[in-house]
Amino acid sequence: MTSPDLPSADPADLRRLLDGRWAHIRDLARRHLRGERFRPVFGLGVEEHRERVLGQLKEIAATEMSSYGFSGDHGGADDVGGSVVAFEMLVCDLSLMVKVGVQWGLFGGAVQALGTERHHAEFLPGIMSLEIPGCFAMTETGHGSDVQRLRTTAEYDPATGEFVVTTPDDAARKDYIGNAARDGRYAVVFAQLRTRGEGHGVHALLVPIRDAGGRPLPGVRIEDCGPKAGLNGVDNGRLWFDRVRVPREALLNRYGDVAPDGTYSSPIESPNRRFFTMLGTLVRGRISVAGGAGSATKAALAIAVKYAEARRQFDRPGSGEEVRLLDYRAHQRRLLPALARTYALHFAQEELVSTLHDRHSGEGLHDEHGQRELEARAAGLKAVATWHATRTIQTCREACGGAGYLAENRLPQLKADTDVFTTFEGDNTVLLQLVAKGLLTNYRQEFGDLDPMGMARFAAGQFLGAVIERTAARSLIERLVSAAPGRGDASDLRDRGWQLKVLEDRERHVLDGLARRLRRASAGGDAFAVFNDAQDHVLAAGRAHIDRIVLEAFVAGIDRCPEGGTKALLDKVCDLYVLSVIEEDRAWFLEHERLTATRAKTVTQEVNRLCRELRPHAETLVDAFGLADEWLAAPIALGAEAARQEAQRAHAAGRADEAAPTG
Amino acid sequence: MTSPDLPSADPADLRRLLDGRWAHIRDLARRHLRGERFRPVFGLGVEEHRERVLGQLKEIAATEMSSYGFSGDHGGADDVGGSVVAFEMLVCDLSLMVKVGVQWGLFGGAVQALGTERHHAEFLPGIMSLEIPGCFAMTETGHGSDVQRLRTTAEYDPATGEFVVTTPDDAARKDYIGNAARDGRYAVVFAQLRTRGEGHGVHALLVPIRDAGGRPLPGVRIEDCGPKAGLNGVDNGRLWFDRVRVPREALLNRYGDVAPDGTYSSPIESPNRRFFTMLGTLVRGRISVAGGAGSATKAALAIAVKYAEARRQFDRPGSGEEVRLLDYRAHQRRLLPALARTYALHFAQEELVSTLHDRHSGEGLHDEHGQRELEARAAGLKAVATWHATRTIQTCREACGGAGYLAENRLPQLKADTDVFTTFEGDNTVLLQLVAKGLLTNYRQEFGDLDPMGMARFAAGQFLGAVIERTAARSLIERLVSAAPGRGDASDLRDRGWQLKVLEDRERHVLDGLARRLRRASAGGDAFAVFNDAQDHVLAAGRAHIDRIVLEAFVAGIDRCPEGGTKALLDKVCDLYVLSVIEEDRAWFLEHERLTATRAKTVTQEVNRLCRELRPHAETLVDAFGLADEWLAAPIALGAEAARQEAQRAHAAGRADEAAPTG
Repeated sequence: MTSPDLPSADPADLRRLLDGRWAHIRDLARRHLRGERFRPVFGLGVEEHRERVLGQLKEIAATEMSSYGFSGDHGGADDVGGSVVAFEMLVCDLSLMVKVGVQWGLFGGAVQALGTERHHAEFLPGIMSLEIPGCFAMTETGHGSDVQRLRTTAEYDPATGEFVVTTPDDAARKDYIGNAARDGRYAVVFAQLRTRGEGHGVHALLVPIRDAGGRPLPGVRIEDCGPKAGLNGVDNGRLWFDRVRVPREALLNRYGDVAPDGTYSSPIESPNRRFFTMLGTLVRGRISVAGGAGSATKAALAIAVKYAEARRQFDRPGSGEEVRLLDYRAHQRRLLPALARTYALHFAQEELVSTLHDRHSGEGLHDEHGQRELEARAAGLKAVATWHATRTIQTCREACGGAGYLAENRLPQLKADTDVFTTFEGDNTVLLQLVAKGLLTNYRQEFGDLDPMGMARFAAGQFLGAVIERTAARSLIERLVSAAPGRGDASDLRDRGWQLKVLEDRERHVLDGLARRLRRASAGGDAFAVFNDAQDHVLAAGRAHIDRIVLEAFVAGIDRCPEGGTKALLDKVCDLYVLSVIEEDRAWFLEHERLTATRAKTVTQEVNRLCRELRPHAETLVDAFGLADEWLAAPIALGAEAARQEAQRAHAAGRADEAAPTG
Repeated sequence: MTSPDLPSADPADLRRLLDGRWAHIRDLARRHLRGERFRPVFGLGVEEHRERVLGQLKEIAATEMSSYGFSGDHGGADDVGGSVVAFEMLVCDLSLMVKVGVQWGLFGGAVQALGTERHHAEFLPGIMSLEIPGCFAMTETGHGSDVQRLRTTAEYDPATGEFVVTTPDDAARKDYIGNAARDGRYAVVFAQLRTRGEGHGVHALLVPIRDAGGRPLPGVRIEDCGPKAGLNGVDNGRLWFDRVRVPREALLNRYGDVAPDGTYSSPIESPNRRFFTMLGTLVRGRISVAGGAGSATKAALAIAVKYAEARRQFDRPGSGEEVRLLDYRAHQRRLLPALARTYALHFAQEELVSTLHDRHSGEGLHDEHGQRELEARAAGLKAVATWHATRTIQTCREACGGAGYLAENRLPQLKADTDVFTTFEGDNTVLLQLVAKGLLTNYRQEFGDLDPMGMARFAAGQFLGAVIERTAARSLIERLVSAAPGRGDASDLRDRGWQLKVLEDRERHVLDGLARRLRRASAGGDAFAVFNDAQDHVLAAGRAHIDRIVLEAFVAGIDRCPEGGTKALLDKVCDLYVLSVIEEDRAWFLEHERLTATRAKTVTQEVNRLCRELRPHAETLVDAFGLADEWLAAPIALGAEAARQEAQRAHAAGRADEAAPTG
């Protein structure tokens, strides 16, 4: 089964394009994360698993990988983008990935971003070397999504020059905190800061929680969260503070400080703006999760595609051979659009990481519009990428049948480990609403409350109509769009300009409609009812926006590829991405008269045709992810199925020999 | 938040209706499966878990529950329907559910259905008492879905009067066999029967695999499948047979026998028909899986709904209170249509179990049309119910946020355990194709090969146009349909007759189109290409059929309910089921001009409205499932969240008191 119209792609080219700007870090990870120490394992008990992951973490601490995210002044490598890419490469065990993220991303990242020189000098070297393992203690049992309302307090006592950190009740205990149950010695604790009887909102403090012997310090209570669906190599725990005293200097004081006499000061006057600025510095966490979800999705697809290429079931009439799973239309439909979207998200992720990195390297650090845009994209991509991971890994498990249910084939662990990605670093439903809010205010309003109801109030204000801000390769995309044939005619569904226009048009229409609806309704009435009636519309707006920016990033990525087989292959993958996005939402396009019934059916036919055309290239496409066989680990993806078929053929041939007349 | 237009439902009435014909068995299970022995547990090691489940199994063996599926002649209770319902009630641990299914459903069921008096007398008492733990050894590594091609052989040797059972190579090893790795002493082995140099297709033999001390018998090799995503309390294993000899009488000879001299005989002449008749007797397995999936879905929904009722997040402007999760539109959208479909599937399952039971009790045993219909429905409902379980339990996990990821809250285990339900007892994609094939041949053709390509050949034959055969409450449904307003006008979307007609019309149209397409294409050309191009169409036909019969069963179930609050509530639940089915597939209705764009949008609005109307009744609806708190076990569903909020309020009140002026 070949596709004569497609010149063959060069796998090395494809890999190089995907590896992108941080190819050297990907290669380093491929060389380093090998052998017995980093082999994926399964069936470990919780304590054994934690021990193994801690050992891996120590090994990584001894390499440059632990230094990427930190400032050069204290031994770091000043490579924020590199830190995100390195995180993403830890696909050998997602517990290790998350533990790395906790130590050097969340904990270390908060000290770097929210602390000042005194914290950097004292703590960063120990954080990088793992002498100071730490926690990021933000989430409370009662308030996961609504961080602004968390209830741990840090009250300044000028008599002793200390903060008193207190957990008022069980709803305010810190919960799901990685590194807390076993290894953490410090925690960055987010608490309501109070001084001189006045509250100043959420701030972070560095609080020691265990002594050198690993015993909880006085006043600190620690509980193990116990077994989880996955990620059992990470020691999540709960923390309570019973009037724990820490020195005034424990406050990470970049955005707010308390003088010895208790006077509060901050470079940012508005408490709301201050809070969101602090949160904004932590955006890397969300970007990392999107990247990690992408890696897990790639691994699952690599396993399922390789198995579907080898596995046969049911006779092909007249051929005497059984049909390979990947030759079935239904099987292609399950795997190939998901593979196309994985490619699209890869390019969007690469673009986002680059943007993050460039901002950190000083370009545009004070460009507030750019920061808001970065945060909105990070939120949206995290939501879309993690939902895609959940859905795709599930599909891959099913596509591998019973074999996909066995732990040795890795899919169960990939599924269970990534399951919480849709929840942590911001619940996806909340994040998509954040994206929509950003779009509604057209990035030009003061940023307000994180709570969704804030949206209804926003919409009642100034609204200038949806503005589509192009992101990647602006001029290329404008050229494509303006060259596209008019909407609704018989133009080629594979015209990139038409595709871009379709997704832009949907985004604009959904957003305009939402704004009109919120404004109309918010004139009278209860803000909650108004928001709530429109909640699905809000989520659709967020999704439409992300679909479009992902496509733009894909188009820009392909543009970086020289003409030839690799580019031609990627063009088809991009077609499949955008047409399956349109197909999935074709009810909307029909309802809004963007597609006729006939044309909607043609979209489905075209998705089928693209599946058939891409089917011979599926294995090339998953190989280009560059995931080592050792990391995939699944025997069904690495020849076990093929070997069994070989044995079966040999057996059949033996029987044929026996039956053959001799002489 | 109340719905003034809905008289309140009586929870006891609702429970009684759901409990249905086997209410006594449900109540028995509720009384019996209690206490420490049956408490859901988590975090056990594989061996510990297996030991615990075996202990539970022994306890159940001592009750009447183990006897339901067996004939009264040998101590059974002759209650096939009861055996399916009892299985479904084992929601305290799905490993136990599956282990019960292996021992008394698959293994015992095969001895009962495929064996004759000599097997019944010798084995059934020991099977029921668990003195003879056994396996159902059908699936091979190389052939899971394509059972007809399995490759283990049983060759008759007239010299010794024995069968020689052989595993030719690794592709033919028996795989994923429950009870094999640890506890099984016998296995019903499916093998290609050969005698006098001639093959007679797949037959089953009773083969001892372990001695009384638990050691594998000579020639039998047993391997543990190792850890799985879930169901780790079930000891799945692999079996190889190296020329294992069993006496002639080991053949389960109801449908095929070998005389001492090696002469083969069978009451069914056609080998194909014989094979499918044998498989057909095992239909209970699929029906049980659908029921088990339903129970797990109910448990997950009960947990998620109770948590969403208690949990609050983000302020409600102006009220000073935080909003309950279940008051959010997006949250209602996630849980309530899934709850409605769970109700619908419950009624369809009850109807199917009744049909199975009545056939076994002698009514219509020889009605071949009825048997084919039963098998098609079992296949289709199994597929739809297990996919619904996978999707809904995933949604429930996400809807419970981080708490849903903790093992203590049961959702992780429910998800992992049920994940393989879409695969075992027939891969769902294969099963839906089977349903479509049955519809295409209009039940009037000889039943042919299980392989999907057979379909293309079928369609080329006689085809008389789709016939909608109504199932439940025929006359009621005909009355409703004929009273329905004409298609496409402004009729009330809640008109039951209109709803029934819409789903009938879709089924007929999809099926007619499929038949035309297959006939047209199969005139020339490659049967595989023809089938493969239409595979999505085939799956859509299967799905459309099942959606319709599920609705009919729901309508018939509501009809058994007296007028009043309970009936009114169920009517709304049914509206939500059918309108969310239509909404989900509204692209099809638009493309085929069954709905205008305006009306399609109205469907969405109506689903929203129904979510709002049903929201106050959500907890009543999950309580009616009658799942004991002990089985739900999840602290977040049983007051932990409410208690924390109480503590938080008490703390806040305390602070208010402190602040209040005294005197």
